[in-house]
Amino acid sequence: MTVINCDMGEGFGLYKIGDDAGLMPLINVANVACGFHASDFNHMRNTVRLAKENGVKVGAHPSLPDLQGFGRREMKISREELANCLIYQIGALKGFLDAEGMTLNHIKPHGSLYGMAGRMEDIAHGVCDAADVFRVPLYGIVGTLHEKVYEARGHTLVSEFYADLDYNDEGMTIITREHHAVDPKVAAERCLRAVTEGKTTSANGKELTVRADSICVHSDTPNAVEIATAVRDAVKPYLDAA
Amino acid sequence: MTVINCDMGEGFGLYKIGDDAGLMPLINVANVACGFHASDFNHMRNTVRLAKENGVKVGAHPSLPDLQGFGRREMKISREELANCLIYQIGALKGFLDAEGMTLNHIKPHGSLYGMAGRMEDIAHGVCDAADVFRVPLYGIVGTLHEKVYEARGHTLVSEFYADLDYNDEGMTIITREHHAVDPKVAAERCLRAVTEGKTTSANGKELTVRADSICVHSDTPNAVEIATAVRDAVKPYLDAA
Amino acid sequence: MTVINCDMGEGFGLYKIGDDAGLMPLINVANVACGFHASDFNHMRNTVRLAKENGVKVGAHPSLPDLQGFGRREMKISREELANCLIYQIGALKGFLDAEGMTLNHIKPHGSLYGMAGRMEDIAHGVCDAADVFRVPLYGIVGTLHEKVYEARGHTLVSEFYADLDYNDEGMTIITREHHAVDPKVAAERCLRAVTEGKTTSANGKELTVRADSICVHSDTPNAVEIATAVRDAVKPYLDAA
Amino acid sequence: MTVINCDMGEGFGLYKIGDDAGLMPLINVANVACGFHASDFNHMRNTVRLAKENGVKVGAHPSLPDLQGFGRREMKISREELANCLIYQIGALKGFLDAEGMTLNHIKPHGSLYGMAGRMEDIAHGVCDAADVFRVPLYGIVGTLHEKVYEARGHTLVSEFYADLDYNDEGMTIITREHHAVDPKVAAERCLRAVTEGKTTSANGKELTVRADSICVHSDTPNAVEIATAVRDAVKPYLDAA
Repeated sequence: MTVINCDMGEGFGLYKIGDDAGLMPLINVANVACGFHASDFNHMRNTVRLAKENGVKVGAHPSLPDLQGFGRREMKISREELANCLIYQIGALKGFLDAEGMTLNHIKPHGSLYGMAGRMEDIAHGVCDAADVFRVPLYGIVGTLHEKVYEARGHTLVSEFYADLDYNDEGMTIITREHHAVDPKVAAERCLRAVTEGKTTSANGKELTVRADSICVHSDTPNAVEIATAVRDAVKPYLDAA
Repeated sequence: MTVINCDMGEGFGLYKIGDDAGLMPLINVANVACGFHASDFNHMRNTVRLAKENGVKVGAHPSLPDLQGFGRREMKISREELANCLIYQIGALKGFLDAEGMTLNHIKPHGSLYGMAGRMEDIAHGVCDAADVFRVPLYGIVGTLHEKVYEARGHTLVSEFYADLDYNDEGMTIITREHHAVDPKVAAERCLRAVTEGKTTSANGKELTVRADSICVHSDTPNAVEIATAVRDAVKPYLDAA
Repeated sequence: MTVINCDMGEGFGLYKIGDDAGLMPLINVANVACGFHASDFNHMRNTVRLAKENGVKVGAHPSLPDLQGFGRREMKISREELANCLIYQIGALKGFLDAEGMTLNHIKPHGSLYGMAGRMEDIAHGVCDAADVFRVPLYGIVGTLHEKVYEARGHTLVSEFYADLDYNDEGMTIITREHHAVDPKVAAERCLRAVTEGKTTSANGKELTVRADSICVHSDTPNAVEIATAVRDAVKPYLDAA
Repeated sequence: MTVINCDMGEGFGLYKIGDDAGLMPLINVANVACGFHASDFNHMRNTVRLAKENGVKVGAHPSLPDLQGFGRREMKISREELANCLIYQIGALKGFLDAEGMTLNHIKPHGSLYGMAGRMEDIAHGVCDAADVFRVPLYGIVGTLHEKVYEARGHTLVSEFYADLDYNDEGMTIITREHHAVDPKVAAERCLRAVTEGKTTSANGKELTVRADSICVHSDTPNAVEIATAVRDAVKPYLDAA
């Protein structure tokens, strides 16, 4: 069984990015930006409301402090500072969930932080330190360093499969500053294979073992609605109704 | 009965302002800055911990979005935007309170927002919209417009008396960009009179009726520790032990 | 004679707004955002380069410090602080002009600041204080308070006519947080009348005297390219070749 | 011959750091923060004025975009983005120099950027790309990678010696998030030795060759005025009068 998740609410001020209204009906779980790589208090409120209207669960999508770089710029940060940085953002999102009578579903680190948590022990611990406060599952990728740390710290890992990103030979997604359009049919086939066989192919052609507890579609990929529609159709028999 | 409250945690990054460690043992209630006029995720964490160590209750001290102006710059903001802006900040602080096993004690709007809520109905309603989410008392001043709005909306007003600010003839504090040193003895006498007689004198010499449910000392007033010490000694018989 | 100007370079980080590449060939003068209401160092560099490639002159489009509100949120600011705020932004833009071997053409205050300078003497003086440093013309509207101040201070006013905004009965444009699509034909006719007759009609139907030294098309109006094309065709005989 | 330089203007909003007024009479050259790690438009204006009153030359002290981390947080940034980031800041400072009839004396990268330019070729080139626009000398340290790049690109390197920082065995200063007090006498002796012998000792006791074209005292070191006074007295015979 799997679900479809999407990074949402990534506008800022007058700026819009991603067709959130078009995507919400297609997904099960929204990872809502918390103001540090994207979003602001107005976008967060509106995104949480939109999720509620569509029966979509909401998790926090916190980032390194990097609005101008959309959180895709790696930076040095200590474990303690990172934990504080995440607690601030997740707490802020919880304010909007409280306002709408919803609960926090999970935490998914954004952008460079996601990759850093996958290969730096201190960063993975900083994520856990924040998650200790909120006691919800962490989104990540099985087989990476963060899986070991999250598990050792007693946190549930929801393993993601990315519909619209390439993988390197180590099984990590390749993070780029901007997302480019992806063939919806190819994306849908990759997702179905990940769900049914637990396999995918890296950008270099290497076979990788994956676990698709949740399938991620990025809202800032230009044809995100087409991708989400195709993926949803492909994996429908395996979608978790809950 | 009264308590002593203090605006705290107003540093930012390397910047320090106010002797928080010196003031905490002297006060009962800390209004902790939430990152929009001062503070950041590290200062908030450390301030909440310091409050806990000193048995001091913590309320949120949210602001207009104005870090460079320390929240002392009035700006046009709609009721809805203001509510979102406040929910974000209060939620973020609650994250740190959750991390330390503490509860949110109250909400006190900061700087220009405090004054705006005292004379603009829409702004007072925006504050209430945010307070509806967290259901804690609001700090303010009796006799101002926000008292009426807060009461009509079913929120408890904790009426403050300011140890270190002058009052205008309408009974509102005079907000300045920087706080200057105040004679601790004069401050202490003003506070005692406010607590025992419910009276104070405006900058122009007018007699004003006040209610000192809580006495505020600003941490960025240069001699804040001296003021707090003198005030505490003066009002000791009336301090709420709870 | 007239020219067509456009507010450009208003993206931020990954966010795009306005079809700058589509508009540049249609205009004579670009007002480039300076990072306080929109834009950042990368967008500024790219916009200046794009202007150079298209033979478009570049002026500064500085704002109140309000990235989240796109500079459309009025705020209290002293004359001295405003002057400093503008010098910073205009200087930053000049850095990019220096890098491309271009010169600063003019200064055009953005958003709420534009309107504030039209009715608050102190604000108009703050604009002049900054313009004193750079000695280039100021964009504005004849018949408003800023005309008097700019003139008294020895600054040249280039009077704008807005293709895509409504006017109030006092002859000022009505600033909204977001710009909506406008009929290109109507916009073109309004502009032609402004250029040839020096007249326009307010939103309430009042006849107004205007002076169209320069015609402004906003890049964030949804159909900006269509508007600019229609306006350019209509006023072609009156366009300043220089 | 040598001069004494100091990083100045590092306050922000209400926050003050460093005794700029006390240090200005003791130094020859001020490196003025440009708003990305510290300072804002008001502090920059005031610092430039203060330098002018004291006959102190002003250089730009630009940083990575990291106000909350005071520019002491390393981050990944491309050469092109870095160049743009620096041009923006240096241009902004030039605005204030123009306002006061002063010229830009030099460029000194701040904090982590300084160290990164000392060991990453792309970063050193990004600094040069920005310096190409302004054609003033670059502050740095002889014997590091940036010396080679700056020289190959035709830029003059003014080699600094740090009065208040420790050196590692590779001859680079050890950057910490906060600066601690240093014995003024020890600092003065180190500086005199650097000026007269071109030698210093690393934190590990290794002898290093240095070149003290300019001696740096940090304004945020707690006893900066004492250090600057002692250093100035010690190196007086070697101070460049110009």
